[in-house]
Formats: sequence, structure tokens, C-alpha cells
Amino acid sequence: MWGRKMEKLKRTDRLVVLSTLLAKNPNTLFSLTDLAALTGAAKSTVSEDLTIVKEVLSSFSLGELYSVTGAAGGVLYRPKEHADDINDFLEKLSQKLSDPERMIPGGFIYMIDIIFNPQIISRIGEIFYTKFQHTDPDYIITMETKGIPIAMMTARSFNIPLVIIRNSGRVTEGSSVNINYLSGLTRRIQTMSLPRRALPPNSKVLLIDDFMKGGGTAQGMLNLMKEFNAEVVGTGVMIATRDPREKLVKDYTALLELVSIDEDKKDVIIRPFGAKK
Amino acid sequence: MWGRKMEKLKRTDRLVVLSTLLAKNPNTLFSLTDLAALTGAAKSTVSEDLTIVKEVLSSFSLGELYSVTGAAGGVLYRPKEHADDINDFLEKLSQKLSDPERMIPGGFIYMIDIIFNPQIISRIGEIFYTKFQHTDPDYIITMETKGIPIAMMTARSFNIPLVIIRNSGRVTEGSSVNINYLSGLTRRIQTMSLPRRALPPNSKVLLIDDFMKGGGTAQGMLNLMKEFNAEVVGTGVMIATRDPREKLVKDYTALLELVSIDEDKKDVIIRPFGAKK
Repeated sequence: MWGRKMEKLKRTDRLVVLSTLLAKNPNTLFSLTDLAALTGAAKSTVSEDLTIVKEVLSSFSLGELYSVTGAAGGVLYRPKEHADDINDFLEKLSQKLSDPERMIPGGFIYMIDIIFNPQIISRIGEIFYTKFQHTDPDYIITMETKGIPIAMMTARSFNIPLVIIRNSGRVTEGSSVNINYLSGLTRRIQTMSLPRRALPPNSKVLLIDDFMKGGGTAQGMLNLMKEFNAEVVGTGVMIATRDPREKLVKDYTALLELVSIDEDKKDVIIRPFGAKK
Repeated sequence: MWGRKMEKLKRTDRLVVLSTLLAKNPNTLFSLTDLAALTGAAKSTVSEDLTIVKEVLSSFSLGELYSVTGAAGGVLYRPKEHADDINDFLEKLSQKLSDPERMIPGGFIYMIDIIFNPQIISRIGEIFYTKFQHTDPDYIITMETKGIPIAMMTARSFNIPLVIIRNSGRVTEGSSVNINYLSGLTRRIQTMSLPRRALPPNSKVLLIDDFMKGGGTAQGMLNLMKEFNAEVVGTGVMIATRDPREKLVKDYTALLELVSIDEDKKDVIIRPFGAKK
């Protein structure tokens, strides 16, 4: 697409190109020189356009335009969500998940239609971005399988690579580091495995998963990260259960809280994390 | 965000809002009424704005604006890619993957840094959307694990749910259908499992995966889909190997072809599928 169009565009046309390109590519740096070449306008003109984009995005809470100064400078789009929008969204999501029809014998909640729904998890990815942007991670780390879509969308919002920890080493990925951990959900010793090549030493990593009960999996991930000399800058989960209150991992951010499940009364309570009632 | 701003906006401002909102939400229908309310403009004015957006997107190959007429009508953004852009992208991706450093003993290629990279797989999702848009699927289906990010991004482009087939039934998702299949890669009988609830009967499904060698996994997926009375409208894989030429699945679309690997000569050849040389 680059450079295909060089004739002079009107400001209205340039604004469509710039807005679309930036919104489609979160946290991707576009240099003023490239944007000027693309739209056939002077850099100073594009700069004025970007001021308009920036102000409109901000006043409509559609994200943030961020300018990087200097020789390697340019502009990038940060898909930050407004606190009110986050609350509204999590409130609606809680209601959806609190449907008694979702109860599965054994005290589980059916939620794969939610956590594999692109619209919902695009939002969740942006919310995790908003909450963890300041931690500046190099990689998003998750454990297969159900957390992958959420972690992927978080990685997309940050525009950093995703790394997936597997249940066992695969021959197709070279040598790997394996550790054992105790999963609270299955109450069994399990293995997690990550290829040596998948994560450079001394990386800053953000752990993302769909669900936390006792925190055994998250703790296993923390231990595995030590083997890679990685610095864990944060842990985010979509839902944490209220019980057990003492989790193996102390420092985590949950978006929702599974307050209680009562199979006999057919009652499920899920709330935005930290919501009073 | 909806309705937060109601004062009269300038056309330039409206174009930024409309372009951003549409680009951020592929294949999501926005009614003219809602867009008018959001921007505080008359429907006829918004309609003119959308004509500008449509023309600019088209001339810059940034996707397609599609109008849905009638009472439930509105406008949606289709992230279709231009054929030339697809070819350029696949050509560059082939070169990246053909790096001898990627060879792993046993005739494998290390590619998880590529297939978990959000920018690359966002593009691949759009390319699969472009190739399969006419098949109008209800669900994207993949088999855990490595294909999930690509399948997720394809689901995002279509704005339809993702369904992930697991290696074994999980208690947390209710009753499931299990079938056995022979994986060409591991040459072992394996199980694939899908919760009954995950896919309504008579759905139209598009199968997406990262890699195809003999086609055993894809054939297993086809068999599993029969159990759900699903109609398979297509099968897309990022890379197919040239050998074996006779795959268990006849009808598939590959983006890239792994032509050959020579471990002794340290030589890997990957090309856009169907490319001559």
C-alpha cells in the first residue's frame, strides 16, 4: 500500500487514511516522513492533521495518540480505554457470566463462548493494556490453552510478541526448559515447558491468563520465568475466584471476581473485581 | 463512549471518529442512527462522511466499507487485503522463514516467533478473511495449540467466534465429543475433543491451522465436524509441505509452501503457495 498514492489529497482524505492506519496498528510507530510520503503532503501539514486526530480520539475516549520525538520519532496509537468504559464493560460481562445456565457440575462456569469471542477479548486486551502499559513489558506470557486468545489480544494491543508455555516439550521447537507444578484446578502434578529459544534471557514479561483459583499455575509460571532470568512486571487474569482468599501468588490484577457458585440454588455471582455489594 | 459527546462536530472530526471506530471493529455493523447520535450530525451528513471514508479506504487499499440497507441496516468495515499487498507480504514472510538458522534437527522449522507475532498474524487473519469471505462461515475452528493465534486473528477479521478443539476432554466444559485421529507429524493415534455446547448443530465452519503435512489433523477435524452436523466451508493453513503431494485432505488453501529442507546442506526453501521458480 505504501507509496501507491502520491497525488495531493484533501485534509478530509488524509484524516481517513491516518486514522484508519493508526487504529489498525496499535503501538506501531509511523514516522512523519513515511506518513507525509503516503499522503503526498508536507510533514508540517501531516503534523497538523495528527493534532486533529489526537484531539478527537481523546475527546471520544477512542484511545491516545502518542508522539515520539527525535530522529527515530513519529507517532503511534495507544488503545487505552477510559475508566468509565472499562467499568461499564466489566459490569455487563459480569451479568453475562452470572447466568445460572453456565453452571457445569463440579462448580465450574462455562465461559469459552466469552473468552473466544473476538469482540469481547479485543476489549479485554485493551483493558489489560490500559492497566499494564506503564510496566513496559517485552513479551506477553500465557499457558496453553484457554488463556491464549486473551493473551494474544493483549499482545496485539501492546504490539509485542506472545509466548505460549506448553503442557509438554515438543520436538519441533528444539531444546526446552521443563518444570513441574501443582495445578489447583486438577489437583495434579503437571509439567510446563518452554523452548529455550522462545524467550531471550533478561526479558521483561507480563503474565496473562483467563482464570485463577489457587494461583498454582501462576506460581509455576513465575518459577519458569526465573529459569529464563525474566523480570515479571505483572500478572493479569480475567477472572479470579474469591476463595481461596490466600492465593499462592500475591501480586496479580483480576478484572472479574467469581464470588460464589451455589449448585443447589442455581446461583452464580460474578462481579467486577473490587466491586462492593 | 457512546453518547458521551453530543455537540456539533466538524466534518474533519467526524471523519476521525468514524474511521477509527470502523477500523477498530472489523465486520461490526454500525447503524446510521447510532453514528448520527454519536457525532451529533444528521443521518444524511453522516452518510456523506461515510462516502468519503469508503472512497479513501478503497483508493489506499485499506479495506472496504460495506453498506447494509434496510431497517436493520448500517455500515461495516471489511478488512480485505489487496492481491498485490498479499503477494508482497507472503514473499517477505517466505524469505524470513527460509532462514537456515530456523532448522531444527528432525526436519522441522522453528516458527513460533512468527506465528505468535501480533503484527504478522493480524495480516494473516486479514488474508484468510480476504480469501474466505465469500464462504460466509459462522465459526472459525482450530485445533490447539500453535494454530490458535492465527485462527483468533481470522475470527477477529470475520467478527465470528473461535472454537478450539482440544487434545482431551476437560471436565470444566461439560459433555464433549471425542474422536481419534492419526497425526502425521507424531505418527501416533491421538484424541481430539470438543464440548457439545461449543458448536451448535448445522453451523457453517471454516477450519484454520498453522501447518499441514499429511493432512491427518485436518481430516480428523473434518470427521469431528460431521459429528456436529457442521458444514465445512473451507480449510486454510498458513504453511503446507510440498511432500507428501497426496494429502488426506484434498480441498485446502495454503498461503505458503515448504518446498524442501536439506539438513546437510543447511538449506530451507519456503515460497508463497503456487509461486513458480
